[in-house]
Amino acid sequence: MAITTDVRVDGRASDQLRDITISRNWLDHAEGSVLVEFGRTRVLCAASFTEGVPRWRKGSGQGWVTAEYAMLPRATNTRNDREAVKGKIGGRTHEISRLIGRSLRAVIDTRELGENTIVLDCDVLQADGGTRTAAITGAYVALADAIENARAKKLLRNANAKPLKDSVAAVSVGIVKGKPVLDLCYEEDVNAGTDMNIVCTGDGRFVEVQGTAEGVPFDRAELDQLLDLGAAGCVELGLIQQKALAK
Amino acid sequence: MAITTDVRVDGRASDQLRDITISRNWLDHAEGSVLVEFGRTRVLCAASFTEGVPRWRKGSGQGWVTAEYAMLPRATNTRNDREAVKGKIGGRTHEISRLIGRSLRAVIDTRELGENTIVLDCDVLQADGGTRTAAITGAYVALADAIENARAKKLLRNANAKPLKDSVAAVSVGIVKGKPVLDLCYEEDVNAGTDMNIVCTGDGRFVEVQGTAEGVPFDRAELDQLLDLGAAGCVELGLIQQKALAK
Amino acid sequence: MAITTDVRVDGRASDQLRDITISRNWLDHAEGSVLVEFGRTRVLCAASFTEGVPRWRKGSGQGWVTAEYAMLPRATNTRNDREAVKGKIGGRTHEISRLIGRSLRAVIDTRELGENTIVLDCDVLQADGGTRTAAITGAYVALADAIENARAKKLLRNANAKPLKDSVAAVSVGIVKGKPVLDLCYEEDVNAGTDMNIVCTGDGRFVEVQGTAEGVPFDRAELDQLLDLGAAGCVELGLIQQKALAK
Amino acid sequence: MAITTDVRVDGRASDQLRDITISRNWLDHAEGSVLVEFGRTRVLCAASFTEGVPRWRKGSGQGWVTAEYAMLPRATNTRNDREAVKGKIGGRTHEISRLIGRSLRAVIDTRELGENTIVLDCDVLQADGGTRTAAITGAYVALADAIENARAKKLLRNANAKPLKDSVAAVSVGIVKGKPVLDLCYEEDVNAGTDMNIVCTGDGRFVEVQGTAEGVPFDRAELDQLLDLGAAGCVELGLIQQKALAK
Amino acid sequence: MAITTDVRVDGRASDQLRDITISRNWLDHAEGSVLVEFGRTRVLCAASFTEGVPRWRKGSGQGWVTAEYAMLPRATNTRNDREAVKGKIGGRTHEISRLIGRSLRAVIDTRELGENTIVLDCDVLQADGGTRTAAITGAYVALADAIENARAKKLLRNANAKPLKDSVAAVSVGIVKGKPVLDLCYEEDVNAGTDMNIVCTGDGRFVEVQGTAEGVPFDRAELDQLLDLGAAGCVELGLIQQKALAK
Amino acid sequence: MAITTDVRVDGRASDQLRDITISRNWLDHAEGSVLVEFGRTRVLCAASFTEGVPRWRKGSGQGWVTAEYAMLPRATNTRNDREAVKGKIGGRTHEISRLIGRSLRAVIDTRELGENTIVLDCDVLQADGGTRTAAITGAYVALADAIENARAKKLLRNANAKPLKDSVAAVSVGIVKGKPVLDLCYEEDVNAGTDMNIVCTGDGRFVEVQGTAEGVPFDRAELDQLLDLGAAGCVELGLIQQKALAK
Repeated sequence: MAITTDVRVDGRASDQLRDITISRNWLDHAEGSVLVEFGRTRVLCAASFTEGVPRWRKGSGQGWVTAEYAMLPRATNTRNDREAVKGKIGGRTHEISRLIGRSLRAVIDTRELGENTIVLDCDVLQADGGTRTAAITGAYVALADAIENARAKKLLRNANAKPLKDSVAAVSVGIVKGKPVLDLCYEEDVNAGTDMNIVCTGDGRFVEVQGTAEGVPFDRAELDQLLDLGAAGCVELGLIQQKALAK
Repeated sequence: MAITTDVRVDGRASDQLRDITISRNWLDHAEGSVLVEFGRTRVLCAASFTEGVPRWRKGSGQGWVTAEYAMLPRATNTRNDREAVKGKIGGRTHEISRLIGRSLRAVIDTRELGENTIVLDCDVLQADGGTRTAAITGAYVALADAIENARAKKLLRNANAKPLKDSVAAVSVGIVKGKPVLDLCYEEDVNAGTDMNIVCTGDGRFVEVQGTAEGVPFDRAELDQLLDLGAAGCVELGLIQQKALAK
Repeated sequence: MAITTDVRVDGRASDQLRDITISRNWLDHAEGSVLVEFGRTRVLCAASFTEGVPRWRKGSGQGWVTAEYAMLPRATNTRNDREAVKGKIGGRTHEISRLIGRSLRAVIDTRELGENTIVLDCDVLQADGGTRTAAITGAYVALADAIENARAKKLLRNANAKPLKDSVAAVSVGIVKGKPVLDLCYEEDVNAGTDMNIVCTGDGRFVEVQGTAEGVPFDRAELDQLLDLGAAGCVELGLIQQKALAK
Repeated sequence: MAITTDVRVDGRASDQLRDITISRNWLDHAEGSVLVEFGRTRVLCAASFTEGVPRWRKGSGQGWVTAEYAMLPRATNTRNDREAVKGKIGGRTHEISRLIGRSLRAVIDTRELGENTIVLDCDVLQADGGTRTAAITGAYVALADAIENARAKKLLRNANAKPLKDSVAAVSVGIVKGKPVLDLCYEEDVNAGTDMNIVCTGDGRFVEVQGTAEGVPFDRAELDQLLDLGAAGCVELGLIQQKALAK
Repeated sequence: MAITTDVRVDGRASDQLRDITISRNWLDHAEGSVLVEFGRTRVLCAASFTEGVPRWRKGSGQGWVTAEYAMLPRATNTRNDREAVKGKIGGRTHEISRLIGRSLRAVIDTRELGENTIVLDCDVLQADGGTRTAAITGAYVALADAIENARAKKLLRNANAKPLKDSVAAVSVGIVKGKPVLDLCYEEDVNAGTDMNIVCTGDGRFVEVQGTAEGVPFDRAELDQLLDLGAAGCVELGLIQQKALAK
Repeated sequence: MAITTDVRVDGRASDQLRDITISRNWLDHAEGSVLVEFGRTRVLCAASFTEGVPRWRKGSGQGWVTAEYAMLPRATNTRNDREAVKGKIGGRTHEISRLIGRSLRAVIDTRELGENTIVLDCDVLQADGGTRTAAITGAYVALADAIENARAKKLLRNANAKPLKDSVAAVSVGIVKGKPVLDLCYEEDVNAGTDMNIVCTGDGRFVEVQGTAEGVPFDRAELDQLLDLGAAGCVELGLIQQKALAK
């Protein structure tokens, strides 16, 4: 695939991520916490570790990891009403919370975790496209921190438990003005003919592939290009996660 | 890709659909209605055509198509509580309703529809895996009937309006016991390592690709096999839809 | 009472039921299931048998039978919003669910049932008047099947337990154009001055009598005529139930 | 029918009402208001008259009358949770609100009312059986007052408008210890084999008949006795209403 | 502070309470019940005593006292929709319920109460300003009665238990037309520049002070005047409570 | 009043504020936005300016200012469930949102604002006591920025419009270990016998005074000390706000 060098709305190459920042320990109380930034997209990921599991999992010897995603009312260009005020969670929120949870569970060995629960709260403080992929990428780091915190407190199954089987990161790809591009900002997102979210493990395998033709359906060749672009982007994000965790 | 001929739980070849039945005009009141069966999975799809569009679309000259998915309490092996009684729609229901709506809109030319709304109600009477893909496949036929019904009543933009740009069908694929298979029944679904839903237009292009690693992440080769299998299944379903509409 | 032979909207005699069809085992999963049709009114009744009883009944040695009624959005001439989407059950739905539950409990010996619960889900697939009476009539058959199913699995109190004391059926009667008629279809229902639902046991006694003057209040003579007509209709329905169960 | 003179729990004859008190103008703000007492059952009925009608009735030239029933948490022997706190109206509340509304509308000529709305709020301050029948009986008086209040303010269709076609009252009857009795108190109600609510107009015709076999189904002879008893009770209540309105 | 003798809307002196009436045992079922009237404001306070405490308090040896406030739809000049119908409790209702609960707990020794719960339901039958302060003042008397009732039934910690440490009463004060006044009626309330609720114990100390500048912010001198006025009003209410309890 | 110099939990003097930080323009989209920190308490305040007012205010020539307060699930030591997931706003949230709105409206001249609406979203990212007072203090600055932003876009009543009559700030005071202290952190808050929130305008007058005896009721002398301490704290906060706005 030829990487286009045409100028994107923010001057990036088609296979170029936005500036990625991962700030660990952004909160004082949470067992793990990260403020993750994909350009202007800013998501606060807090990992809460609690002993015990939901009732349906008791006695299984296995832990549980879940996630909740939400957006502050003024994360976006115009204000959105609060879901708490409306009295119900919208379909999009539900869908993204479930995606984040599944993505993290893909790299968790629940037996090694022991009967403990980790909830990942991903709150979008500012949105500029790619909030769900930023959330997954940041939540992984918060999750890793929460697990090390639990290890230190001797709350895991044993001292050498390895609840994390691999890392996980996510990125969006899409076809904008007929060309495949990586990590779409909001302006690109609204103009994308096809929009795809790719979630990969650190070893390059796929956890989730979600592609949607917003306008014109896409053919297999386009799909292949998007998969290549997304997989490469996840590799890059994996390195940034590693670097952040090494600090 | 070698098509395995090993016996599946119900004796099908790996690339074989279940028995598909599409019964049109199953209801007396709806503008279009289909009882679609993928083996034991049975979904009632009702298309309701109403003149006018939601407020946010008024004056646009464009129509609107949306969908709602639900499952009867005893569609499944054990009874599920009603969402109406619980007082809220669950995340899975929301997600599938949105998927069906997007899939149908992918083949609709909203300008040709004129300022009219079509709601597709997809109610699962009995579930045995693949309810969302059966719903999309059946809803397309109900939608086509509702459009012809509207044409007869002169409610479309004009007598020759072509609101349908193409047909759309969907099928699930997955990796079961290490092998890619088409159109999973419930027993296969719960044992699938990877589960993917493919939505394609009649001309073989992709509208949605949603793959999830339930257990082990999947690699690119597996992903390619699944895409091949799903695309071929959709072609077959497209022919069945055509035959049903020709009656 | 003189039975009028004037032609009704669908040509029936004033004391004539619509065509009644009771299709047993319409679903594969439910312990009992019936698709009941009163003319164009079509209700799917599913009986779910589960061991155990609600908390307030534990240790009583008695079982519990309850019912939930609902209507698909496009069961009717124009589409109704889903109660799950509105986030609450309407008054009419509540009222009918309670009526069905009470009617079935009237013929249940809860001691003979043992500490088991049977939920009857009555979902109206198509409505043309008399949905609640069709639901009761069909639900009785599904209930009988669920009990025999439980007996076969040795889940009842003992092998000879008789949880069913009698059969139960229901029918609507009303005064249309000044004349008492049996089993009103929708068009008759909206024009009825008085509308009454009669629920009777197989031995001809009353379980419920619910009469409402929609327009002009009714006098005792009219009430007596309606009671005669309804009781006779229930007898006829009881025979149809017997025949269905004998198959 | 032989009226039994056996002593009931509170010493009444089988056809004897409890002490009935109707206190008009119990509130300062409402257009009509009544504290109605059937023995220890105490219901506050407030009629709110407002100009205009709900949207679906605009331009019809007709008014609208509706009712809402509720019970204070400690109206009963043990405290019930508030429906507002639970976040939803229960089935019983819905059912009774609808019954009261229908009963009052049976004596209203909505054309004579003009495009005005009257809401009857019936709040049970203390419950000792028969709250719904007390509510209907009291609400009629509050309604009559609200209409005269509106007439004085020249809000009716014209000066001689007769929105009230008749009066309406309600009473419960039931079979207790095998004998038909009138106006059951709570203790009788829980022991009743059959429980029936009768709503009649001042001229002795029926508006609603709702009979339920709580235990053993009832036969036609018993039903006839209950209807006689209830109709006679309503006549008596109609006189008490007249007397109250004459003050 | 000079007490103004200018005529208020209802002719009272600036430091004069409205006519206060406390009617005990207004209900037959509740362990304590009071109809309290501050002029035309009329609140029914019912105290429900139940053995046991909420789960989070079990085994603590301490009891719990809480309150719920609500207003009947037609307590006010124009009808308000029911919160149960709207499906949620409004902010104002929540706020007042919490205030009443805190105020009563301030005079309760939960150890002396033993593991028992008392719920105070304060339902406003008619509102003319000062409903929350009337509710607190009346609820205290209902609470005292419920405690004596429990003592008689030997449900307290022991025969000499003193769950009540002191009495508590409340009154509103405000600046109307530039002058501090006591116990505002509705008409004064809407015109008040500053509105303050004072809750005091029988020994003259403060439990709650809640002052709000509705229009112009208030200075320290005004605040001092309001505190003096409110504290004196509470002393007077305490005497009225004593007198009521002495009956 | 003698200012105690005893060491508080974090070493502050009794009349000493925590470190206060006000970071303006923390968000890119909002018309005004502030991250305000009172020690470890961190609140994100976003002001959303929109043309037009709620329906009930249309045509009045006056604008509207309102606020919504919320806390992220892991702002606190242990995770709290989301109110959106629970489907309703809790009493505390309601109460604080209303307090913030009233406090800001106290310094707004709605006529000068013109028919525009400003919503202040105050989301607590981290909580360590005093979140509502931090929210008010920060929201004022965001509000001031939103107004200047609107002035620049010529959206105010006129070029010289002065919608802000004064500044407003808030602080908590309380009696901890028997001594009055300023700006309580969480650990002090839970141990406080009395807890009071003071809201003052820049000119030193009171907008809100909310004092609650958590344990022992407080006397007038203690109340006076708390008012002195709080008023002085607000003066200090006013200077910090000025400095922040001057940058």
